[in-house]
Amino acid sequence: MDEFALIERIGAQLGGEAPQWLVLGPGDDGAVVRPPAGHDIASSIDSFLADVHFPAGADAELIGYRCLMASLSDLAAMVAAPAWALVALSLPDGNADWVTALARGMDEAAAAAGARIVGGNLAAGPLAITVSVQGWVPTGAMLLRAGAKPGDAICLSGPVGGAAAALRQVDLAASRPGQLSALERSYWRPQPPFSLAPELRSHASSGIDLSDGLLADLGHVAAASGVGLHLESAAIPLAEGARLDDALSGGDDYALAFTTRHPPLTARFAVIGEVAAGGGLFVDGKPADEQGFRHFR
Amino acid sequence: MDEFALIERIGAQLGGEAPQWLVLGPGDDGAVVRPPAGHDIASSIDSFLADVHFPAGADAELIGYRCLMASLSDLAAMVAAPAWALVALSLPDGNADWVTALARGMDEAAAAAGARIVGGNLAAGPLAITVSVQGWVPTGAMLLRAGAKPGDAICLSGPVGGAAAALRQVDLAASRPGQLSALERSYWRPQPPFSLAPELRSHASSGIDLSDGLLADLGHVAAASGVGLHLESAAIPLAEGARLDDALSGGDDYALAFTTRHPPLTARFAVIGEVAAGGGLFVDGKPADEQGFRHFR
Repeated sequence: MDEFALIERIGAQLGGEAPQWLVLGPGDDGAVVRPPAGHDIASSIDSFLADVHFPAGADAELIGYRCLMASLSDLAAMVAAPAWALVALSLPDGNADWVTALARGMDEAAAAAGARIVGGNLAAGPLAITVSVQGWVPTGAMLLRAGAKPGDAICLSGPVGGAAAALRQVDLAASRPGQLSALERSYWRPQPPFSLAPELRSHASSGIDLSDGLLADLGHVAAASGVGLHLESAAIPLAEGARLDDALSGGDDYALAFTTRHPPLTARFAVIGEVAAGGGLFVDGKPADEQGFRHFR
Repeated sequence: MDEFALIERIGAQLGGEAPQWLVLGPGDDGAVVRPPAGHDIASSIDSFLADVHFPAGADAELIGYRCLMASLSDLAAMVAAPAWALVALSLPDGNADWVTALARGMDEAAAAAGARIVGGNLAAGPLAITVSVQGWVPTGAMLLRAGAKPGDAICLSGPVGGAAAALRQVDLAASRPGQLSALERSYWRPQPPFSLAPELRSHASSGIDLSDGLLADLGHVAAASGVGLHLESAAIPLAEGARLDDALSGGDDYALAFTTRHPPLTARFAVIGEVAAGGGLFVDGKPADEQGFRHFR
């Protein structure tokens, strides 16, 4: 199937009623959106390469869902409401069924997050997916990696380590939508906590999404905030099947880590440590290497 | 050099004073921008793969300039003022000098267009560059492929065919910045006419950027507008070294084609034909196949 026919197949998967802010969807030189008054726009881009970021032979619908949700996770971390996404796809061949399933998975993730895919690009090449995501955040209210203050609690939005545990234990290329185990869901169905945004905007001092592992990502918070972060390993909520090491050094969790001293938040979410003066990252009192995933190490 | 060190090298190339609308640049989970009141946002994404969209062995600075400018061209076509860009880069190795030159070329193109690179992503993989671009357009004033009316003149913003002629005649992998021939400049230094935007907003009925060749791109305008487009081949302004076929079926020109009946525009720009009722695309009275570049043909 050729480029323009494939693009039509993809477009047919992008369903649901168009949001009010969407002035022009796919099909022209670009999409046009109308931002709501009184809002800034958070904007981010992520790439997913076959056999680097996902198993090339895996189910296309699962790949699509995961790539889009992992991209939108950056918006959750900045407490922005997901709005529009653009998807650039490079494919070794024009397999229409594969592309249709990928688009279906992406659209499902977009709908679940309240986002909309408004355009894209298709090219012949090694299998890779790049997603640009944009979201609204009330003017000046974004949450940064900088801002953690000594005395704040360090919280997690949910259990971690599940995706790394799945990578370790499961043949993810054999996963099928509708038949996912809890471990498989950790990897294929990341659920960034978008609904937390209003509360975090008011009461969190810093935030980051956990894409590279707890140590690497919290290392960024410590550096950006100019503080020390002291974690207690026993307090880290582990996903089913995960070991401590999966949580500390594995990636792909897409939970949020945030700092706060707001009791309704610290009561509801796992408090895994405390912010202190000075610098660095410590686990059970010992300095931690940042052992997250890093390209070109 | 590892991922984070490379990102720092890239950031050092992104110079100049930050625009007022940029709330937060690279370094967090995403960038944050503040759209000007009374404006919509045009948004587009493009991918450039080594040895599909550019010669893999070419000078990195030239590659960077061309990829960014070709992406921004979509904004010129929608009469949007370029604002922010995100760049996702996949690279086979962490060659710091190569990446630095690429970023320098991209920053040069962004600066020339009035845009700013506000974030990106870096991954290890086959050489590929994906650029997401966003620009401001006064509310409701975007120019579409749809809108051409019978009786409108079909105009070009500049000569065409130069990039295809360069691909045919020149070893573009040997091009060096600062020593470009006119032909090489056609390919490596696309110059979308951003400054035309205000005049086109008021007086053009449709527009498209010429990325896939005159026939393929004007075919989109004919279809979207539901009109016939009748071209006179002798009126098409050819770039130095280009043949008619380069202009009709070659790509990569990034000039604009637009339709208008505004005399100051038709006097200043080449009129290459006329819009008529009915449908289809005709060259010198004969139906034209759409012969532009197409992936997965």
